[in-house]
Amino acid sequence: MRTRAAVALEAGKPLEVMDVNLDGPKAGEVLVEIKATGICHTDEFTRSGADPEGIFPAILGHEGAGVVLEVGEGVTTLSPGDHVIPLYTPECRECYSCRSGKTNLCTAIRGTQGQGLMPDGTTRFSMLDGTPIHHYMGCSTFANHTVMPEIALAKVREDAPFDKICYIGCGVTTGIGAVINTAGVEIGSTAAVFGLGGIGLNVIQGLRMAGADMIIGVDLNDNKEEMARKFGMTHFINPKKVENTVQEIVKLTQRGDDHLGGVDYSFDATGNVNVMRDALECSHRGWGVSVVIGVAPAGAEISTRPFQLVTGRVWKGTAFGGAKGRSEVPKFVDWYMNGKIEIDPMITHKLTLDRINEGFELMHEGKSIRAVVEF
Amino acid sequence: MRTRAAVALEAGKPLEVMDVNLDGPKAGEVLVEIKATGICHTDEFTRSGADPEGIFPAILGHEGAGVVLEVGEGVTTLSPGDHVIPLYTPECRECYSCRSGKTNLCTAIRGTQGQGLMPDGTTRFSMLDGTPIHHYMGCSTFANHTVMPEIALAKVREDAPFDKICYIGCGVTTGIGAVINTAGVEIGSTAAVFGLGGIGLNVIQGLRMAGADMIIGVDLNDNKEEMARKFGMTHFINPKKVENTVQEIVKLTQRGDDHLGGVDYSFDATGNVNVMRDALECSHRGWGVSVVIGVAPAGAEISTRPFQLVTGRVWKGTAFGGAKGRSEVPKFVDWYMNGKIEIDPMITHKLTLDRINEGFELMHEGKSIRAVVEF
Repeated sequence: MRTRAAVALEAGKPLEVMDVNLDGPKAGEVLVEIKATGICHTDEFTRSGADPEGIFPAILGHEGAGVVLEVGEGVTTLSPGDHVIPLYTPECRECYSCRSGKTNLCTAIRGTQGQGLMPDGTTRFSMLDGTPIHHYMGCSTFANHTVMPEIALAKVREDAPFDKICYIGCGVTTGIGAVINTAGVEIGSTAAVFGLGGIGLNVIQGLRMAGADMIIGVDLNDNKEEMARKFGMTHFINPKKVENTVQEIVKLTQRGDDHLGGVDYSFDATGNVNVMRDALECSHRGWGVSVVIGVAPAGAEISTRPFQLVTGRVWKGTAFGGAKGRSEVPKFVDWYMNGKIEIDPMITHKLTLDRINEGFELMHEGKSIRAVVEF
Repeated sequence: MRTRAAVALEAGKPLEVMDVNLDGPKAGEVLVEIKATGICHTDEFTRSGADPEGIFPAILGHEGAGVVLEVGEGVTTLSPGDHVIPLYTPECRECYSCRSGKTNLCTAIRGTQGQGLMPDGTTRFSMLDGTPIHHYMGCSTFANHTVMPEIALAKVREDAPFDKICYIGCGVTTGIGAVINTAGVEIGSTAAVFGLGGIGLNVIQGLRMAGADMIIGVDLNDNKEEMARKFGMTHFINPKKVENTVQEIVKLTQRGDDHLGGVDYSFDATGNVNVMRDALECSHRGWGVSVVIGVAPAGAEISTRPFQLVTGRVWKGTAFGGAKGRSEVPKFVDWYMNGKIEIDPMITHKLTLDRINEGFELMHEGKSIRAVVEF
């Protein structure tokens, strides 16, 4: 079949919207009509050429929602008409990692996915001249139709609006999951969130849901404060306006003379390795847990004195919020539909596919939290 | 009173054994007759001048065992005749950290202890000419008698031999505690231990006790293999003899085609920041936990790509094995007396106080696991 897609032809170039060929689903695969897709910093990381593992030409996009049109041989858990959210972290429930129960990092299709291919080592997309187009993060949601492995699709309720729940395919789950799955925040905790973009706001609403007492937001942009407060932030620090952000957080959290200060939990949602260090070091001696969420530039490294760990701080990270997608994404959708979490105020812009490059510009200019393309 | 002590007069000089003055215990303090003390790398770190926080003159030593001779005003939990192990990490049970239940890093006397002083800001030791001599890690066990706060003494059973249980005051508890308190190793786990000195051997016996299936030891010195196997090591790697230690560990732990390899738990007992990185990176994607135990040189930093954390590895550290000393040290002594843990083969040398500098030489030459001074 033919479908319409925004294709990344070369690193650093705007996407080109064009008709492409799409082969039908092979065994274990599913054809999905994408109804809406968010534009995420990770797409930009690859589009811009900063991602050393970026492959071109490719159809980017990994934060979508849509409807199953056709299933390949052997697909048993999905049928045409099902509403689904694509998962860049699949959940096969059979590999060593899935069976461990200890991680969401399914390895079933890891090798081919990283190479922009379907599990059989080929692509379903091609140019009209036959040139193969690579898949991206196993999803390629910047296309009106895509083919995905069954294990990489979460079936969700049919009354949920695509233009909102697409955000659960990455940002919402990553931010909230970091709090509830990776950090395991308890009621009454104190926390700091570095970076108040789309991920940071979701960390904040995750902390509010988890019952944190104090939620300190950190951002260089004062304009982020208002929205973050709406999601539950209780204190705001602009690092440009204080001498030392770590010391400021320590002071804010000090509880009496025999208390050293520091947050119980901290989260980096910036991708900046220096910020990741601050996040670790503002966490509490003895038990502070710091979670890296942001994606750092290629080759960048985090550092600290080992003394920070020896005195009881824990450095962790999270991918897709530690969520097992097929099992947990439907729960996030329920939470949205029940009003337990908010998404609407974060979808600041809606675009058609033809205007997808404007979505990247809005992100660059810091004007959008999330721009969503609707098909 | 007068007592005999090995005094560190200046950084980098051998200790000088001499008579010193010792004031009696003030309120909340206890006079202890030290019966035996181990010589630890941390003492050498300070003696050599490498410790930027070293203060001189001081009486070093922090791994001792002895008998209470006299208690100061208000001391309620100890009486003359009680057998005790000094704790460089006290347990006041009243400070914010102790009350949290989440850490062993009591802060009650942290400020003064770090300055080589008793909690009232003075020293009990002085030269015969009256010059004050600093305490060290709140213990100063390189003296036949010392004065310590009540909260920094663990009362232990009286049938346990001083020349063995002194090692519980640091090395044994640090190594075993790192496994059972900090890492929380489960039965059937795989683990790697970097550095097979006194701490590493205790990590190994902790892993054996915790029921680990595979215990990989890593050391540059082949001579360490035999002893480590006696304590439970199942595999040995000499980094000089393999191309890449991390890859070797990954290969050793691979379980079938769909398994990436890597250990569930790793421990650095070297203090080398490059080794700490290897320890993290050989741990399992998705759930590997790496624990820093060793003390790094001043200013040294650990580094890694944040991707290592984002893909599920956890970087932690431990001080005194996460053990709450007054509560847990008696249990370690029981374990030794019941044969659950071994200490005797690790006490490779016994010395009198007059020959204490020989103990430091044995350590330098890698000839001793632990040299113990008996009074």
